[in-house]
Amino acid sequence: MSSQPPLLAVDLGGTRMRAALADARGVILRRAERLTERERGTAHIIQRILELVAEVKRDEPASCIAVGAPGPLDARTGVLFHPVNFSEDDIPLKTILEERFGVPAHIQNDANVAALGEWKFGGHGPTEHLIYVTVSTGVGAGIISHGRLIDGFNTTAGEIGHTIIDPDGPLCPSGHRGCVEVICSGTSIARTANEALQRGRGSSMREPVTAQDVAAAARAGDALAQEVFLHAADILGLAVVNLIHLLSPEIVVIGGGVAQAGDLLFDPVRAQVRRYAMPLTDRGVRIVTAGLGQDAGLVGAVVLAMRQSEA
Amino acid sequence: MSSQPPLLAVDLGGTRMRAALADARGVILRRAERLTERERGTAHIIQRILELVAEVKRDEPASCIAVGAPGPLDARTGVLFHPVNFSEDDIPLKTILEERFGVPAHIQNDANVAALGEWKFGGHGPTEHLIYVTVSTGVGAGIISHGRLIDGFNTTAGEIGHTIIDPDGPLCPSGHRGCVEVICSGTSIARTANEALQRGRGSSMREPVTAQDVAAAARAGDALAQEVFLHAADILGLAVVNLIHLLSPEIVVIGGGVAQAGDLLFDPVRAQVRRYAMPLTDRGVRIVTAGLGQDAGLVGAVVLAMRQSEA
Repeated sequence: MSSQPPLLAVDLGGTRMRAALADARGVILRRAERLTERERGTAHIIQRILELVAEVKRDEPASCIAVGAPGPLDARTGVLFHPVNFSEDDIPLKTILEERFGVPAHIQNDANVAALGEWKFGGHGPTEHLIYVTVSTGVGAGIISHGRLIDGFNTTAGEIGHTIIDPDGPLCPSGHRGCVEVICSGTSIARTANEALQRGRGSSMREPVTAQDVAAAARAGDALAQEVFLHAADILGLAVVNLIHLLSPEIVVIGGGVAQAGDLLFDPVRAQVRRYAMPLTDRGVRIVTAGLGQDAGLVGAVVLAMRQSEA
Repeated sequence: MSSQPPLLAVDLGGTRMRAALADARGVILRRAERLTERERGTAHIIQRILELVAEVKRDEPASCIAVGAPGPLDARTGVLFHPVNFSEDDIPLKTILEERFGVPAHIQNDANVAALGEWKFGGHGPTEHLIYVTVSTGVGAGIISHGRLIDGFNTTAGEIGHTIIDPDGPLCPSGHRGCVEVICSGTSIARTANEALQRGRGSSMREPVTAQDVAAAARAGDALAQEVFLHAADILGLAVVNLIHLLSPEIVVIGGGVAQAGDLLFDPVRAQVRRYAMPLTDRGVRIVTAGLGQDAGLVGAVVLAMRQSEA
């Protein structure tokens, strides 16, 4: 173990929360996990987080706590703004953690934190320019550019899910039409398939289906499933083209549940990039699957803690 | 004048090229200008650039040369790849300038350079997060994030013009459909209006019209002109929403000929941001007109030279 004090890392999700104690080089020494049970309310969630951190911390004099949390949040003040699927209240998490544990706390959006994890421990090789895109219940991204996490002026950067890619597309609950999330997320793939089945489209699928069901049926040759999944993958591919044009990453990592469809997702995405990326922009660019799986958030929080304790 | 040697700055355009000698604080001491006359070929263009630099340099021992040039280009090697509207050949401009003048030369995309100019001398106040969007013959952008120019892995970042925002939209000569440029550029506004006139749409306009004509007719109450201009402005507004979601800028500067339409462009752009930006993402964000006009490129090249000579 390094001579510097260890770091505390926390990954908060709607279903479960994880915490780890890691040494200054990022090696995880202890870890723990709890169900979030968000239906029990905000006070319960906060209590759970404090118990979880205390469990991995024990009596170690940690140098800081880093947390990956669901957005929207303000990374500078460390306040979560009633994040969807997590809490109905605002949570001043930075203040709560600093008061309880007496060390600096750093809060960052979960997709941004996962990007840090994939960047440093995802096995993609060294790079200064990596974008992590998660395609799951929702769609999010974390941007590493010129060797740093881009969170921007309001610390809200990386919100690729609600970038608009088809102004006449389906209506997003957020009020706009045709954002990447309302077309490409697992939720949206399932919804599109279920709606087609309800309209009586012939298919081997029986509703209600999940995105995983659609991917499985597409592999088995079901025409409706192939059409639905390919449309989502094509639009995701255009979103990746847009990322390449706007930010010139070297590596685009795609993770989240929908990415487990493998080639069914990656082949069309890569084809769109070959077809539409402008000259020079895609030279040497790799589009790869995530390396860390469900550990990306916790490992990313370790990386965030490492970078903050170095700063 | 500062004790450090002065800087050389060059702005290359399809119609004219400008050069300046500036002191280390960015004050322009001498400037010169030439027509590009690109129809006379690449050797002529290179000769023109060398004459222009020599004219402002005289016998000063400059510390470096910075150039804003039309893309596509590789900012690391300083090679222009047969940039549209400039040259049909590749031009190894960095090498040519370094061999001729014996000082380091830095080549960067013109929109990126203009972003540097607007950032430091555009009068928008201090910020670490500014995006400059130019809407002219084409559409381009330069991104300043966390206090640095984002050019990315292939130095091609900022290519907002060819981000796709409507996969069923008009075909771009680059092969994809519905990119920002093919909908919002001055060229595209004029084309859309002229096509409608050719189809016999009633209007006070007579073809061929320019984007400027369309803006003037829209102000005078012409329904077709208003429809065409508003559609371009609405789509540009969605592109700005996407920039805000993805990069969380504090200031979005819009320049170029089409931006001279003023409120006719800015009102719908700002309305789209009010309507569609997610909570927190647009807090304190300003969308403003460019401060430097046609000097943005030359002033930006001065800023690039200042930053390179500090580095």
